[in-house]
Amino acid sequence: MDFSSFLTSLITSCAIFVVLMAVFAWLSRRPGNRVIYYPNRLLRGMDPLDGGASHASRGPFAWIHEALASSEQDVIAASGVDTAVYFVFLSTVLGILVLSGIVLLPVLLPVAATDKPSHTSSGTVSNGTFSDLDKLSMGNVEEKSSRLWAFLIATYWLSIVAYYLLWKAYKHVSALRAAALMSPEVRAEQFAVLVRDIPPAPEGQSRKEQVDSYFKSIYPDTFYRSMIVTNNEEANKIYEELEGCKKKLVRAETMYAESKTTGKPEGTRPTNKTGGFLGLTGTKVDSIEYYREKISELTPKLEAEQKATLRDKQQAAALVFFTSRVTAASAAQSLHATMLDTWNVMDAPEPRQVIWTNLTIKFFERQIRQYIIYIIVALTILFFMIPITFVSAFTTLQNLKKYLPFIKPIVKIAAIRTVLEAYLPQIALIVFLALLPKLLLFLSKLEGIPSQSHIERAASGKYFYFTVLNVFIGVTVGGTLFDTFKTIEKKPNSLLTVLAASLPGNATFFLTFVALKFFVGYGLELSRIVPLIIFHLKKKYLCKTEAEIKEAWYPGDLGYATRVPGDMLILTITLCYSIIAPLIIPFGVVYFGLGWLILRNQALKVYVPSYESYGRMWPHMHKRILAALLLYQLTMLAFFGAKKFYYAPFLVPLIISTLIFAYVCNQKFYRFFSNPALGVASHQLKETPHMERIFRTYVLPSLCSEKVEDDQFEDALSQVSRAGSFA
Amino acid sequence: MDFSSFLTSLITSCAIFVVLMAVFAWLSRRPGNRVIYYPNRLLRGMDPLDGGASHASRGPFAWIHEALASSEQDVIAASGVDTAVYFVFLSTVLGILVLSGIVLLPVLLPVAATDKPSHTSSGTVSNGTFSDLDKLSMGNVEEKSSRLWAFLIATYWLSIVAYYLLWKAYKHVSALRAAALMSPEVRAEQFAVLVRDIPPAPEGQSRKEQVDSYFKSIYPDTFYRSMIVTNNEEANKIYEELEGCKKKLVRAETMYAESKTTGKPEGTRPTNKTGGFLGLTGTKVDSIEYYREKISELTPKLEAEQKATLRDKQQAAALVFFTSRVTAASAAQSLHATMLDTWNVMDAPEPRQVIWTNLTIKFFERQIRQYIIYIIVALTILFFMIPITFVSAFTTLQNLKKYLPFIKPIVKIAAIRTVLEAYLPQIALIVFLALLPKLLLFLSKLEGIPSQSHIERAASGKYFYFTVLNVFIGVTVGGTLFDTFKTIEKKPNSLLTVLAASLPGNATFFLTFVALKFFVGYGLELSRIVPLIIFHLKKKYLCKTEAEIKEAWYPGDLGYATRVPGDMLILTITLCYSIIAPLIIPFGVVYFGLGWLILRNQALKVYVPSYESYGRMWPHMHKRILAALLLYQLTMLAFFGAKKFYYAPFLVPLIISTLIFAYVCNQKFYRFFSNPALGVASHQLKETPHMERIFRTYVLPSLCSEKVEDDQFEDALSQVSRAGSFA
Repeated sequence: MDFSSFLTSLITSCAIFVVLMAVFAWLSRRPGNRVIYYPNRLLRGMDPLDGGASHASRGPFAWIHEALASSEQDVIAASGVDTAVYFVFLSTVLGILVLSGIVLLPVLLPVAATDKPSHTSSGTVSNGTFSDLDKLSMGNVEEKSSRLWAFLIATYWLSIVAYYLLWKAYKHVSALRAAALMSPEVRAEQFAVLVRDIPPAPEGQSRKEQVDSYFKSIYPDTFYRSMIVTNNEEANKIYEELEGCKKKLVRAETMYAESKTTGKPEGTRPTNKTGGFLGLTGTKVDSIEYYREKISELTPKLEAEQKATLRDKQQAAALVFFTSRVTAASAAQSLHATMLDTWNVMDAPEPRQVIWTNLTIKFFERQIRQYIIYIIVALTILFFMIPITFVSAFTTLQNLKKYLPFIKPIVKIAAIRTVLEAYLPQIALIVFLALLPKLLLFLSKLEGIPSQSHIERAASGKYFYFTVLNVFIGVTVGGTLFDTFKTIEKKPNSLLTVLAASLPGNATFFLTFVALKFFVGYGLELSRIVPLIIFHLKKKYLCKTEAEIKEAWYPGDLGYATRVPGDMLILTITLCYSIIAPLIIPFGVVYFGLGWLILRNQALKVYVPSYESYGRMWPHMHKRILAALLLYQLTMLAFFGAKKFYYAPFLVPLIISTLIFAYVCNQKFYRFFSNPALGVASHQLKETPHMERIFRTYVLPSLCSEKVEDDQFEDALSQVSRAGSFA
Repeated sequence: MDFSSFLTSLITSCAIFVVLMAVFAWLSRRPGNRVIYYPNRLLRGMDPLDGGASHASRGPFAWIHEALASSEQDVIAASGVDTAVYFVFLSTVLGILVLSGIVLLPVLLPVAATDKPSHTSSGTVSNGTFSDLDKLSMGNVEEKSSRLWAFLIATYWLSIVAYYLLWKAYKHVSALRAAALMSPEVRAEQFAVLVRDIPPAPEGQSRKEQVDSYFKSIYPDTFYRSMIVTNNEEANKIYEELEGCKKKLVRAETMYAESKTTGKPEGTRPTNKTGGFLGLTGTKVDSIEYYREKISELTPKLEAEQKATLRDKQQAAALVFFTSRVTAASAAQSLHATMLDTWNVMDAPEPRQVIWTNLTIKFFERQIRQYIIYIIVALTILFFMIPITFVSAFTTLQNLKKYLPFIKPIVKIAAIRTVLEAYLPQIALIVFLALLPKLLLFLSKLEGIPSQSHIERAASGKYFYFTVLNVFIGVTVGGTLFDTFKTIEKKPNSLLTVLAASLPGNATFFLTFVALKFFVGYGLELSRIVPLIIFHLKKKYLCKTEAEIKEAWYPGDLGYATRVPGDMLILTITLCYSIIAPLIIPFGVVYFGLGWLILRNQALKVYVPSYESYGRMWPHMHKRILAALLLYQLTMLAFFGAKKFYYAPFLVPLIISTLIFAYVCNQKFYRFFSNPALGVASHQLKETPHMERIFRTYVLPSLCSEKVEDDQFEDALSQVSRAGSFA
């Protein structure tokens, strides 16, 4: 890639960004698009254009001003602590890059540019004729030159800045978490614990009695009540069918009302077919009547099933509620039975993020599952090319024609055929990479983790290793990690040397990559073109009822599981190149700066968090920043070695201090992120908690009968106890 | 070693044992020796010869009957749970050896003896001409022979027996610990927690106020009071001086009374000299008057110092008392502050085993100390010959003569000189090995561990690695581990091969070693010759007062820290040879059987435990038995490899299953041994605990004023609070 094509690519990306910004400025002002650009505010019942400025006077850059003016408390109020922690991450990384950039750029660029290397030292100069930028990189410095001292000190400077800011950030996040957990608001999950691996109930005792008597004896004063986890499969199925029918009924009624107002002859009543397959087969019936009938048929069925579930389908897990936050917090950390695989107690997840089906998995089964998943993921990371090659081999045109005969006429066209033949493997790869986050989420869920946020953290970790190992190291070294292993096999420990040798050659590739990421990626993020188009299409052709329209614009959450590993990849690239080609630092600064600005806007106005884990993601981010820092230091050690610099071993203390720093942080801070601190939980509450309401937040809608809201569940449960005691 | 010398050694050991037994039978019947043979019973206020049998009718083997008839509850009553757990260890190991012996001996011995090896396979046959025993070992089986299958299956059999018995034992010990912890007796340590790393007290608050308000806010209902750890150095010094004077006064008074009764002229009043050096210098004074004066001088000084200590020397650690066992148990497991290095809470050790000086060591200092100690111990294990060589080189006769001129005349005698020159290095080694347990205890204490039992566990672990690595592997491979490393350096992973090749050659050495251990070791243990002689000497020449005599016979405890590693060494040897030379199994059986019997007697009648950790030693024993098992399996893998047996890899699943077994046991059982389970602590107490008495058990004697027993401490403390609040 020569300089002009680099510039072309940069300018193109920038142009796309400007266009997307303009699109955003124009589209976001149209009232019809408010649900796309301000859903978070709308859902919180706020005016989308809050801030006093009238509609007309708002400039196209008002959002920038708003984002910059917003405080951390605003973010917490709008999107929760998790999102605020994400901004701590962004600003910490930004801080590291800015603080090292203002020292490294003015120092290292002149040092590199004024050296006159004897162009024999090949392998450390970028491919092609991209000499203008190469002059500004460490590749331009001669081997063994004493100028390398400047680069070595720069390596130290960046690391020390990173330690300092990371330490401050960990303290800050710790304080954020503490502030959230000691808040005087009553939060249901702070009063509950999750109990798993309950041993078989003794003869003549129901599970509920067993759990109640066990916890009553340990916590005579603060035990409130328990909720036994049940096998809700059947009840859920009926409930979903019922809800579906209700939706369809509303829809049919709306359509009927519309058709009446539009004055069609005799107000055509909507009809549908009763058959299963896509609603295309079966007899034609009147929709309104049909669904009304179905609902009145399903409602008693659901009620019967609810009772049966609560009575007969109790499982070996329970949620236990306490009247005190401190008791719940301390119970979640304490050993209850002498063996860890019985009466295993942990914090209850938030009601909205409980993975009910995972609660009943047994202790050792969870462990076995976890190790199996780890092995699968490790194999996926190492050999991810193999199944893709296999799938590509299978999906040749011959095979496709054989199994999918209807594509035959398309394939006959020569042009399409050529394209298909050439791109089938790539398509398989793209499909795999697109599905990877889903696959990792699915695998993490299989581990038996009880909460959604934990699953996303686990998947995010797996994704991080995948991207860093396959994208960064893969692209740098060339080919997949597996190929590299084969060459490294003969000389162990040479991965770093190979990496160091290949790094400079790919500097411009990664510069372009980072630029593309922030210009196009964040441009699309801000303008929300894709959700906007989908919403308008759905609204026009599919949605009939208010609920359906709301569903169409309802925003997702920030998407931790994939967003953080993506940022981490950019960070790893920027760090590893920061000394070798310091020009990458401004690119990294723009990436994280722009990301901060645009996501601040999105966090305040668009995304709605789907759970709150009170910053539990932070230790994972912290650990991975340190992993990137370690990779950077190791690479630099190898690179100085490749430059035949005698003082390269001076970097070893730096590597050791990174390990010590990681250890100290982990020891000092980590436990508070896995367990609530009692000193925090003991803070005063605003009001005496309404225990029944807390209990009720955990009742699944499919088990919550509508008729007698308040007494039904209680009745069913007391029936259970009674039934059990006579069984 | 040929067969006759092996027999000679065996018979000699056996003869010594018989003599010692006879000595024991004779001496233990003399009433004057009761304090040596029945101190535990005497201290518990029981009749030494309990059991109804009159003195005369007791046969010399009555103790055997008593030991066999005693139940686990008797042991717990006499020597505590820790000792009972030690017997579980002994009987488990015995069970493993017996159960494998009854299968292995009848099967393997004939299989080995009937094979006719072509005596070319050197290296797997014992050194020398000890062919009679060799015929019964695996060395007698030909290479690649299908007879090796029997040995391979035997390897499996022993392991499976071990898994089964260890699993049962872990469950049993867990139940023992639970029974002890849920006992309705009030035990002070179950109501207290140890708080370390207390942050600096805020302005205008004393430490006590700070701690009280912190814990009151978290545990408003169950907090009783706190005790701040103080720097008692000065108070202790005065207290010890005072106690010394009191003892000497009693001694002087006794001597004076004696001299009066013996009718010496004018009842010679005892005198002493006031000088420091061994009481030989200074002016001569009347002892009784001198000490009375000193006591009346020191008592107010101590009282003043006590007040000053309690007020001004408060440290950043405290003991906090709760009125409920459950709260204390759960507090000890819970995170209190957001950072782990502040308000670190753990179980309180028993009052008698608190290491007060270690309580105030800071969190990260403890960690740093721990790692430094680990490194020192690892170096000691690997290179323990180096300092000894160095010391030996330094302690040549020339140097000794130079620095210790008074030995010159001795050295001049030729015979002594030769002996000294020859044995100086060995003497250095023996001194080092004798001091090693003390050194390891000292090092473990430096780690900052807060309780004596924990220190002994830590030292025991270190000693285990030292003995197994240096004695077992060292003797087998020949030379120290360090020498072996040098030969292994070129071919990594060959340690096992070297070990496997050297094992058969040392079979007879270890047979003799085990026999010596049990005959002489346990003979001395039972007969207690050494303590008896020391006691009688002391009684005759040193002791004057009752207290001094009691001190002279007061028994120690079982001595976990060195006894367990010693047993482990025997177990490791027996296991590693069990298949190669099955004849070792009966020796192992006798060792552990005799050990069980004799120590049962000692536990019931002699030793007095110096602390109670409720079986916390067990997980360590369990882990080390598994380590021995793993070493055995690895050795067998290497040995089958040396025998060129194609199916040797069939042992790999066995090794993996040992690792899985260790993992599962650790996961399932371990946590209960580091933290009390709440379900156990919640059991009913016999009586409402007398909190003031519990609190008082933790008050050090040096801080406990005698005058106003009950109010003084309270006053001093409340003064502190008041003083603090006005400061």
